[in-house]
Amino acid sequence: MLSKNKIKLIKSLERRKFRDEVGLFVAEGPKVVAELMSALHPVYIAALAEVADILGQEAIGQSSELDIVSPQELARASFLRAPQGVVALFPIPERQWTAPSHGLSLALDNIQDPGNLGTIIRAADWFGVENVVCSLGTADVYSPKAVQATMGALARVKVSYADLDAVLSAATGPVYGTFMDGTNLYNQPLGQDGFIVMGNEGQGISKHIEEWVTHRLLIPSYPANRPTIESLNVAVATSIVLAEFRRREEQTEKGK
Amino acid sequence: MLSKNKIKLIKSLERRKFRDEVGLFVAEGPKVVAELMSALHPVYIAALAEVADILGQEAIGQSSELDIVSPQELARASFLRAPQGVVALFPIPERQWTAPSHGLSLALDNIQDPGNLGTIIRAADWFGVENVVCSLGTADVYSPKAVQATMGALARVKVSYADLDAVLSAATGPVYGTFMDGTNLYNQPLGQDGFIVMGNEGQGISKHIEEWVTHRLLIPSYPANRPTIESLNVAVATSIVLAEFRRREEQTEKGK
Repeated sequence: MLSKNKIKLIKSLERRKFRDEVGLFVAEGPKVVAELMSALHPVYIAALAEVADILGQEAIGQSSELDIVSPQELARASFLRAPQGVVALFPIPERQWTAPSHGLSLALDNIQDPGNLGTIIRAADWFGVENVVCSLGTADVYSPKAVQATMGALARVKVSYADLDAVLSAATGPVYGTFMDGTNLYNQPLGQDGFIVMGNEGQGISKHIEEWVTHRLLIPSYPANRPTIESLNVAVATSIVLAEFRRREEQTEKGK
Repeated sequence: MLSKNKIKLIKSLERRKFRDEVGLFVAEGPKVVAELMSALHPVYIAALAEVADILGQEAIGQSSELDIVSPQELARASFLRAPQGVVALFPIPERQWTAPSHGLSLALDNIQDPGNLGTIIRAADWFGVENVVCSLGTADVYSPKAVQATMGALARVKVSYADLDAVLSAATGPVYGTFMDGTNLYNQPLGQDGFIVMGNEGQGISKHIEEWVTHRLLIPSYPANRPTIESLNVAVATSIVLAEFRRREEQTEKGK
């Protein structure tokens, strides 16, 4: 049985204000919930019997509050048009930005769309970027939409929020950014340390953040000089850049 | 003045049934509308005075019905949380799939999310892929959400719907597809003709479509063998594959 209070609690977590107040976020679907369970301890799970089995009902029951629910009950708690069998509440991890000693980090400058943000975190996981720092104006990665778009990548990728000027002013390595007037990504050396800055969907990288960028990259359109759309989606652009950094690294490894 | 009937018409176009009935789709925002106006003739535009000016009020007024509206009126017609100053109605182009004589085409196998679909079309435009053929089960590219995600790329990219088995069975060139057990994209030759098949968000490429695939590609995660998220977002995966095809082509051009 899913109590009215539980439904009310879950639904309230669509709003950042309530998430911050109670320190919880919602995740749905067996894949996303299972991924998150590998890193975080759920405080509550509502699941169809067959999905609870998949997730390991015994293990859950020992450590979390578990309700076996009907599809109708689940639908009342779900944020999805097609609920996916399980809704879980996880504690929002405390994350303070600390500069990693090496490797690539992503710096997100006011990404607004929760779907884009989640998709970026998912790609960061795929390409082994463990640290993502978001400007204070970036969307909240713990909103239901962003969490779903991560597909559970929050289990491995550390996302923190900080003043990007402060973060980048302390950077000792290169700071990459994409610009319409940048240099062809494929024609310049790319390292495996430093920051990759990605900008807002409409405005790109802010002027004050641009000042910290040491390497201006361009993802070339094709064929050159053909009229085309003005830009790529920011999650797409981030992923193309990450793919190229990692392709180079693999090439370098092979060359050794 | 925006009449009640116009608002009703616009709002009805959220549903495919009504779009098909009247043969119209909705686009919003000066960028998207201006892009589409370069290729399609709007039948109706509602815009704030300043946005009508940007779009070229005189040119519009001669050929389309134009209403200069207040922000409050526009908000009633808009599908966006933050309306962008203009809502326009365009005729849905008649597109029958005809196999192009050369070049790369995208074949989309049951892409479900309109945002993903639109983002794929936007990337296709960026990478000069003019022809996209969608399975009959793919989302409708003329839904308001998909149109917004294209950012106007529908002005150049021809999107048609067809039986993918029929389309691919007639293919004379290579048919590429991405699979979890494919061969590293970066370790195999890629041509500049044929089809790239992208599969459904949850299920990947259908079994019956897989049979037509001649080249199985994998986008490698990094570092190899590290635990990671199960897959990339489909619009992200499509874009990484397209970027790599075009990077190779540019390399080949340079080598000549």
